[in-house]
Amino acid sequence: MDMVLLAILCGLVAVAYGIVTALQVLRAPAGNARMQEIAKAIQEGAGAYLQRQYIAIGIVGVIVAVGVAVFLGTVPAIAFVIGAVLSGVTGFIGMNISVRANVRTAEAARGSLQGGLTMAFRSGAVTGMLVAGLALLAIAGLYYVLTSVNGLSVEDAVEQRQIVNALVALSFGASLISIFARLGGGIFTKAADVGADMVGKNELGFDEDDDRNPGVIADNVGDNVGDCAGMAADLFETYVVTIGATMVLVALLIGADAGRLMTLPLLAGGVCILTSIIGTYFVRLGKGSIMGALYKGFIVTALLSIPALYFATNAVFPDMEAPIALNDTAAMSFNARHLFYCMLVGLGVTGLIVWITEYYTGTDYRPVQSIAKASDSGHGTNVIQGLAVSMESTALPTLVIVVGIVAAFQLAGLIGIAFAATAMLALAGMVVALDAYGPVTDNAGGIAEMSGLDAEVRERTDALDAVGNTTKAVTKGYAIGSAGLAALVLFATYTEDLRQFFSAVTVDFTLSNPYVVVGLLLGALLPYLFGGMAMTAVGRTAAAVAQDIRAQFKENGPAIINRTARPNYARTVGLVTAGAIKEMIVPSLLPVLAPIVVYFVITAVAGQGNGFAALGALLMGVIVSGLFVAISMTSGGGAWDNAKKVIEQGAYGGKGSPAHQAAVTGDTVGDPYKDTAGPAVNPMIKITNIVALLLLAALAGH
Amino acid sequence: MDMVLLAILCGLVAVAYGIVTALQVLRAPAGNARMQEIAKAIQEGAGAYLQRQYIAIGIVGVIVAVGVAVFLGTVPAIAFVIGAVLSGVTGFIGMNISVRANVRTAEAARGSLQGGLTMAFRSGAVTGMLVAGLALLAIAGLYYVLTSVNGLSVEDAVEQRQIVNALVALSFGASLISIFARLGGGIFTKAADVGADMVGKNELGFDEDDDRNPGVIADNVGDNVGDCAGMAADLFETYVVTIGATMVLVALLIGADAGRLMTLPLLAGGVCILTSIIGTYFVRLGKGSIMGALYKGFIVTALLSIPALYFATNAVFPDMEAPIALNDTAAMSFNARHLFYCMLVGLGVTGLIVWITEYYTGTDYRPVQSIAKASDSGHGTNVIQGLAVSMESTALPTLVIVVGIVAAFQLAGLIGIAFAATAMLALAGMVVALDAYGPVTDNAGGIAEMSGLDAEVRERTDALDAVGNTTKAVTKGYAIGSAGLAALVLFATYTEDLRQFFSAVTVDFTLSNPYVVVGLLLGALLPYLFGGMAMTAVGRTAAAVAQDIRAQFKENGPAIINRTARPNYARTVGLVTAGAIKEMIVPSLLPVLAPIVVYFVITAVAGQGNGFAALGALLMGVIVSGLFVAISMTSGGGAWDNAKKVIEQGAYGGKGSPAHQAAVTGDTVGDPYKDTAGPAVNPMIKITNIVALLLLAALAGH
Repeated sequence: MDMVLLAILCGLVAVAYGIVTALQVLRAPAGNARMQEIAKAIQEGAGAYLQRQYIAIGIVGVIVAVGVAVFLGTVPAIAFVIGAVLSGVTGFIGMNISVRANVRTAEAARGSLQGGLTMAFRSGAVTGMLVAGLALLAIAGLYYVLTSVNGLSVEDAVEQRQIVNALVALSFGASLISIFARLGGGIFTKAADVGADMVGKNELGFDEDDDRNPGVIADNVGDNVGDCAGMAADLFETYVVTIGATMVLVALLIGADAGRLMTLPLLAGGVCILTSIIGTYFVRLGKGSIMGALYKGFIVTALLSIPALYFATNAVFPDMEAPIALNDTAAMSFNARHLFYCMLVGLGVTGLIVWITEYYTGTDYRPVQSIAKASDSGHGTNVIQGLAVSMESTALPTLVIVVGIVAAFQLAGLIGIAFAATAMLALAGMVVALDAYGPVTDNAGGIAEMSGLDAEVRERTDALDAVGNTTKAVTKGYAIGSAGLAALVLFATYTEDLRQFFSAVTVDFTLSNPYVVVGLLLGALLPYLFGGMAMTAVGRTAAAVAQDIRAQFKENGPAIINRTARPNYARTVGLVTAGAIKEMIVPSLLPVLAPIVVYFVITAVAGQGNGFAALGALLMGVIVSGLFVAISMTSGGGAWDNAKKVIEQGAYGGKGSPAHQAAVTGDTVGDPYKDTAGPAVNPMIKITNIVALLLLAALAGH
Repeated sequence: MDMVLLAILCGLVAVAYGIVTALQVLRAPAGNARMQEIAKAIQEGAGAYLQRQYIAIGIVGVIVAVGVAVFLGTVPAIAFVIGAVLSGVTGFIGMNISVRANVRTAEAARGSLQGGLTMAFRSGAVTGMLVAGLALLAIAGLYYVLTSVNGLSVEDAVEQRQIVNALVALSFGASLISIFARLGGGIFTKAADVGADMVGKNELGFDEDDDRNPGVIADNVGDNVGDCAGMAADLFETYVVTIGATMVLVALLIGADAGRLMTLPLLAGGVCILTSIIGTYFVRLGKGSIMGALYKGFIVTALLSIPALYFATNAVFPDMEAPIALNDTAAMSFNARHLFYCMLVGLGVTGLIVWITEYYTGTDYRPVQSIAKASDSGHGTNVIQGLAVSMESTALPTLVIVVGIVAAFQLAGLIGIAFAATAMLALAGMVVALDAYGPVTDNAGGIAEMSGLDAEVRERTDALDAVGNTTKAVTKGYAIGSAGLAALVLFATYTEDLRQFFSAVTVDFTLSNPYVVVGLLLGALLPYLFGGMAMTAVGRTAAAVAQDIRAQFKENGPAIINRTARPNYARTVGLVTAGAIKEMIVPSLLPVLAPIVVYFVITAVAGQGNGFAALGALLMGVIVSGLFVAISMTSGGGAWDNAKKVIEQGAYGGKGSPAHQAAVTGDTVGDPYKDTAGPAVNPMIKITNIVALLLLAALAGH
């Protein structure tokens, strides 16, 4: 059977699993009238936000699509639209299941902890399998249409370029949507959270999720549009870009075996969807913890993926020892068995990053406990220690990635690194399932609180939610780690494209070329500038939220407090929506425009060769700097959040103590770190690289 | 006259100016008995700390000196010791004048604002001129002895190597001491500051500098050992390394003109010492502000330096249009006039960085005001906005540095970049004078408070001190900016050394070599790990200080509060001393050991060529990442500090308001950012590069 069709079949299985499981979730009881009323307010707010976000993104998207059509042709433009639309659809479906699962999780938690866990995790699994399944369908489907339907061949230089451009344009569509979705959703969720806490907790003395706080619905909406829809679009993008970049690199570097080898990433993705689905059935509370139950699913998936990847490799290359033919005969030779080992390296990197992130953000280990302890001395020392942990937390993941790069490269050169990245992403279905579980439990807790369910129910949802903090940090570490590898693959594609398109131009990529240094510096700047803008945007929008909440209390304070009048939730939601949409545009365009500007300016000053060198170095600078900015922000933010949880569980005086107040400050600081700026760096890195590839193609007239 | 002797003469003039001015300062009245008693306590504490620090550094220094002697020979070992000892001496003298000028400044401020300004600035000028003068004497003297006394010639390959190794070893000595001094002093000053504030201000409700706070003397000692001694050692190092690296690069790249061109950086340094001395006489209050008075001195120096540098260039190259002969005849050709233009580029970069830093840390502009405004919403939003500003503040300096690199490179290649960096450092005397003024006024305020002088006096010292925050940030921005350029020069030296020593080894420095990527990632990690360690060290030592202060109040609280008993200042000072010394060792060794470990590990895995490539990339990674970490920390910290000042001047409720408390939190967070971790990144970057150079020389058996 055609390996591509097999991959498509796996993608369809994922979608089928998603539909069946979604129906299971929707069939579950949705609680009493009050619960449904609250859930409806969250649904409406999330729906309204997503609609406005997609309109805004749509406008940008149409303009960019026209540009792609003009400079690169119709097929890439269609591929771009497919990538963009499916990225949006993933977020849309994920969010819609999430805003329906929240209230059902609260209802199920009235029965038992296991009931709540199953409902929340099933909803996460729907999003996870749809992300992986749709991403695989997009890329495998496009490839199938181009090669088997339209009959293009990778062996032919002109046709190869058409395939490559379509794959890159597909990735561009996915990336462009995902940076907007990640950033817009991230600004929404944290502006609402910080704004609601600022007035609600600090000024009015409310608890989290008090329904008298006008910002409380916005906060719950934010969990869905940021942590669920934004995250889903981001991981969809990561999947498409990584598998796509691997296929492109294979097309460019491999000789006679290229066509065959291009199907391996697709099949690898396909079989791991099956292992992920099997893994979901192992998520059950045994004697151990909730985290243990979730990890059981992950470990089963990872272990089953080893034979599955072996099967996939063997199916594509029945003779695993035969050397794979390379274009450049002087390059290192390798065979299919080496590629299988590279994929094991990818699985290993994934496992280690999960474990390290757990260490840096889990409540049981030194980093989080050191922040909790520092809270006892005040706000300042809490933040100092949190920043120290956030900086330190970059060290081990970097070492793991470095070892992964070296091992994969020793096995099979650049192609080896690409397959390691592919294997990391192949687990995306399971990883996203663990992550998308988080916002559902977070919301379920809110609904339980606001609808006055028993304290016991709230305790159960809190227990489920605490684990969500760590799984969310884990996904971000995984996404950024895989982005580091994927970006190297994109960079290799860039240099290979340069060689093919501009063989007459001498490009000096050595570090002793000052234009390379200039590119590295400018690239390294992008995550800083982007992060600074994102943090400012959260601060500004949060201040507007706080002002609105204060205004509502000025207008109608006593009535709201005595519960004789309801706050105007919709007004606050509308305000955050408008703020987030406005603030997301400029930072998102930064990585799109920066490569173009740098190329043209340096070319004007120092010639095209140096323009290409500076642009290439910019790509590398973004990766190197972005990796640290993103890891430090996401791990640091998770650690701050859980340090607060440690204190809320009774350490250093518990809730309401000075240590707790300091920990709340740290948590507030960590919010935009971990949920806005940090994760958005991931699509930012890749979009910069993809724009550079498209720029080359446009300059070369392809 | 011999140009080197002329440079030595200028160095002697600087020392003479320093001695004369120091005597002027010491002759001034030292205030009443109470003032002298407090000043004596500060002097003793600072002296005791510096003694212990130097003993600890001395042990490390002797071990390293033996290593240098074994691997590189006697002359480099002697040069290493000269660099190390003079770096230490600069810090020692600077601190000793500072701890005597503080009380005299307080006394002079009783008379008039101008009196206080003159006294504080004169003391700063002593440190400034000694830093520049001793650094120039060290490097010019060493060069003179090697070439004119010992008769070594740059033209001869073997003798050239002896000169180069001696200059690199001199830089190594200066760098090694300065990283310890910067970090140890930085940990001391901020641990004392944060610890004293945590208990004194937050728990006991004391004002700053209340003499009943047992940590108050330690805090004042910290200003001297960190901001003065540590800073002086750092700038001494920056000067020696920059001028030294320029000379080394000239020796390696230039042909017949090398001997002559090597004297130009020395003479450039020399004439700018003279313009700096002239500039000091223009620091006078006119109608304008205190900042205006200080800037007057700086602007006069910068403007006078233009003709002075022209004179220096013309003196060395009477025919400024004659092309300078390069070893590599294929390289771009340039003449002395081009080098003069490069030095103007360096002056321009300096001016712009000063101006940008002023914008990001001055109380009158958007960044600081946005932090002050965010304080009104609480601790969390203050910190979020501060972090946003700190990230954003990296953008303009990076652009300025990039433009500087491109302009200098277009004019005269790598040598052009080296001369731009040299011109930046030539202004060091003036810049250090502005900076060293800060801790003196800070101490003067403390002494005025503790000895109960009139409120009017405290107001004057406060006005002088507020400006100190900005000048301190300016110096750090300047130091790190010049470090960026100097590190590029060191990197060029590394690649040139590789070519000379290991011509048989193929080293692939292109960005598409994965070992280059690995090196970049590991290099970029170093500032993060170093910064995280430094922040943790401050937190840990500050907690110990807080505990001691609490213990003193438990033992003897009522008596101390009623002023019937004095707190045991010395015990707190001793505790901070022990903590700072202990904590400084491991992080300081990180940049020394990392290059060696990375080289040997990668060589073992992937061969010597990739070992060299990874090591080179590590150097570049440290520069690229370190620049952003350092600028964001120093500018962000300065902005937080001045946002607090804005509120203390009455905005958002003024002193004691909730906004003020939030601003105090931001200031506390900014403290280790701007005074411990951030500035120590500067010597860290250079020491990594220098160790790599020495490693090459040792491997090659030179």
